[in-house]
Amino acid sequence: MADTLTGNCLISQSGGPTTVINSSLAGLITEALNYECIEEIYGGLNGIQGILKEDLIDLASESQQNIRGLRSTPASALGTCRYKLKKSQDFERILEVFTAHNIRYFFYIGGNDSQDTADKISKYAQEHNYDLRVIGIPKTIDNDLVVTDHCPGYGSVIKFITTCVKETALDNEGMGQGDLVSILEVMGRNAGWIAAGSALAKRRDKPSDPPHLIYLPEVAFDPRKFLDDVQRVLSKEKYCFIVVGEGLIDKDGNYISTAESSTDAFGHAQLGGTGDYLKGLVEQNLSKKARSAKLGISQRAAIHCSSKSDNDEAFLAGQAAVKAAVVDGITDKMITLLRSDSDHYKCETGLADLSEIANGVKKIPENWINEDGVSLNYQFFKYALPLIQGEVEVPYENGVPKFIKLSGFRVDKKLGAHTF
Amino acid sequence: MADTLTGNCLISQSGGPTTVINSSLAGLITEALNYECIEEIYGGLNGIQGILKEDLIDLASESQQNIRGLRSTPASALGTCRYKLKKSQDFERILEVFTAHNIRYFFYIGGNDSQDTADKISKYAQEHNYDLRVIGIPKTIDNDLVVTDHCPGYGSVIKFITTCVKETALDNEGMGQGDLVSILEVMGRNAGWIAAGSALAKRRDKPSDPPHLIYLPEVAFDPRKFLDDVQRVLSKEKYCFIVVGEGLIDKDGNYISTAESSTDAFGHAQLGGTGDYLKGLVEQNLSKKARSAKLGISQRAAIHCSSKSDNDEAFLAGQAAVKAAVVDGITDKMITLLRSDSDHYKCETGLADLSEIANGVKKIPENWINEDGVSLNYQFFKYALPLIQGEVEVPYENGVPKFIKLSGFRVDKKLGAHTF
Repeated sequence: MADTLTGNCLISQSGGPTTVINSSLAGLITEALNYECIEEIYGGLNGIQGILKEDLIDLASESQQNIRGLRSTPASALGTCRYKLKKSQDFERILEVFTAHNIRYFFYIGGNDSQDTADKISKYAQEHNYDLRVIGIPKTIDNDLVVTDHCPGYGSVIKFITTCVKETALDNEGMGQGDLVSILEVMGRNAGWIAAGSALAKRRDKPSDPPHLIYLPEVAFDPRKFLDDVQRVLSKEKYCFIVVGEGLIDKDGNYISTAESSTDAFGHAQLGGTGDYLKGLVEQNLSKKARSAKLGISQRAAIHCSSKSDNDEAFLAGQAAVKAAVVDGITDKMITLLRSDSDHYKCETGLADLSEIANGVKKIPENWINEDGVSLNYQFFKYALPLIQGEVEVPYENGVPKFIKLSGFRVDKKLGAHTF
Repeated sequence: MADTLTGNCLISQSGGPTTVINSSLAGLITEALNYECIEEIYGGLNGIQGILKEDLIDLASESQQNIRGLRSTPASALGTCRYKLKKSQDFERILEVFTAHNIRYFFYIGGNDSQDTADKISKYAQEHNYDLRVIGIPKTIDNDLVVTDHCPGYGSVIKFITTCVKETALDNEGMGQGDLVSILEVMGRNAGWIAAGSALAKRRDKPSDPPHLIYLPEVAFDPRKFLDDVQRVLSKEKYCFIVVGEGLIDKDGNYISTAESSTDAFGHAQLGGTGDYLKGLVEQNLSKKARSAKLGISQRAAIHCSSKSDNDEAFLAGQAAVKAAVVDGITDKMITLLRSDSDHYKCETGLADLSEIANGVKKIPENWINEDGVSLNYQFFKYALPLIQGEVEVPYENGVPKFIKLSGFRVDKKLGAHTF
């Protein structure tokens, strides 16, 4: 065991939520309660932005039902932000807040920007001889963090999408007569992990199962090839089911269509997302009816159809963060998820330098994508299938899911207001 | 008991599928097996279109697992169509097929167009002295059939949407800081039942819960009032959650934006759905970030989050149809769902003339909509809440839902090909 560092711990969440980010929070709180050197367990509201405002709550006072309920409640129970620390005053302020509340352990759940923030805070504390242990906990549905095998949040989003694809494809099959094109736009701008995940809707050794075509930013998009692809599928199947991520990139590396639409003087969308773009290509060039859907935020919040293994791993990552900081005296690291080499999937946690995470986007390996550019091979299936195993039980009350809301007992402020 | 009519029965599905249309099919088959006067139980593939082609399968030969699995398999297991009988040759052909296969009971699961088709077939058979009993079984997520209290399929679609709204709103709450507008476009062009159903995401007596604004075709849409509505919500809440159906109608009764997009020369969507239209209004006039999502077909196929009471009632409607035809010798009727007058919701089946159903769209009663035009009062809650009770258990295998596929044992054709 490392030197004992006694003081309070602070947990915060940042960036776009997932269905399991609260499970990591539950893991952190549960584990932190085990150590006497952690005197208080605080939550910082709305990420670093709330910490600057000294908006802290007392997590140890929350009921046990609430802590358990976090595991079946999507989104960020502590609130989140996309604020980036810029000014030196921001860093001074953070240290003031940490000093005022004797924060000695800082756990930040987030994506690469958040790990970068955690890294900077840690370095600033070291420069000012403030004893602080900082551990990041990964989260992103995008699954594009480097170093870690996969990211908490990813398994759940692709389980939901896979389920929707299987269901919607059955609807298309009942309706289609060789003339129906169905397009589903999912998240993922820089890497195609989410779109690729929809391939799990295919049965083993049934490459002709839907989704028939998956478009990834890893493969240069060519409208002419796209139309050929659609016609090839329709010549054999009753319908053509397409999955596309938000990011579609041409051979010169430019985004073809953006998820952010601009509007004309009449408020009409001028440029839709990639789903509407593909729909337009089909309708204009093939004279076929196309339908597009866009799951939007609902996909990353869909805990009602989420992965138990993902949820469990997110919890484990939270626990591992506290153990690393308290037991091993580690700081400046992010928890990673490692896959043991055995044939049977087993997930363990590891550690990576925070500074390693910040600058990198992990794309799908080229050799996991088939030559047709629109489907994934067995290596992807081997990778992704273990991540969607098991179902999270969400309690329903009177027909609707029942989520918890933290009581949010405020910690008294000790400082004046911060100027942003 | 009515006069015994001995012969074969034919079941078919038509129009847009729902999550429970196969449950009605299971109810029909299960009940039909009870009567000796029903010698064979046939399924007509792809609705009336397949019947014209003499595409029949033997449903009695399907395994019991398959019949049970129908209850947790979305979409139309028999396939569906949108074909309308027009030519007199079509009617002649139907009667030829029925005669060739000794069809004496015809059960057609569908919406108002389908009930109209069933009605015409029945009348044609009567004119030609062909002894036939025809019963329609209602289905439509739109819930806009007249006479019946509600339609099988509706409870399930609003349970899924309500769940997505609750989850997505939590995500918005974590992210929003008085500046986030979240728009969900759901189905429903002529009546607002589906959009209205999202109101069930609100807790009892918590009118400020999301969804904050619901736009219905029953209320004339005014862009200026819309922008005021959004600003009013954002002045009080961290985010503004909006649900809108595909149909948005101005004060002159014209559709403002259509779900069918046209495309410009570059394949870009020119006119998105109503969700994108509202997004455009917000971004252009309020300088706020808006996000829109469109669940599309996935909403009507989402059996993984569907209503048990809806599923049970769909099964019951199937059973009731066979009983009515066989035991009571009834024909030319559609099964309706009736709500008993008691305080505790109880659903019974009734009967309505097929000809009554065809021409009518049931809208939300005016006095169920609050004066603000964007929310529903307790009468709607009292109506809709019983319809989403209970959860359908969908079996998962290896992380993905497991649906059945009928074996589809073909009935030998006895006639030549039909000319469409």
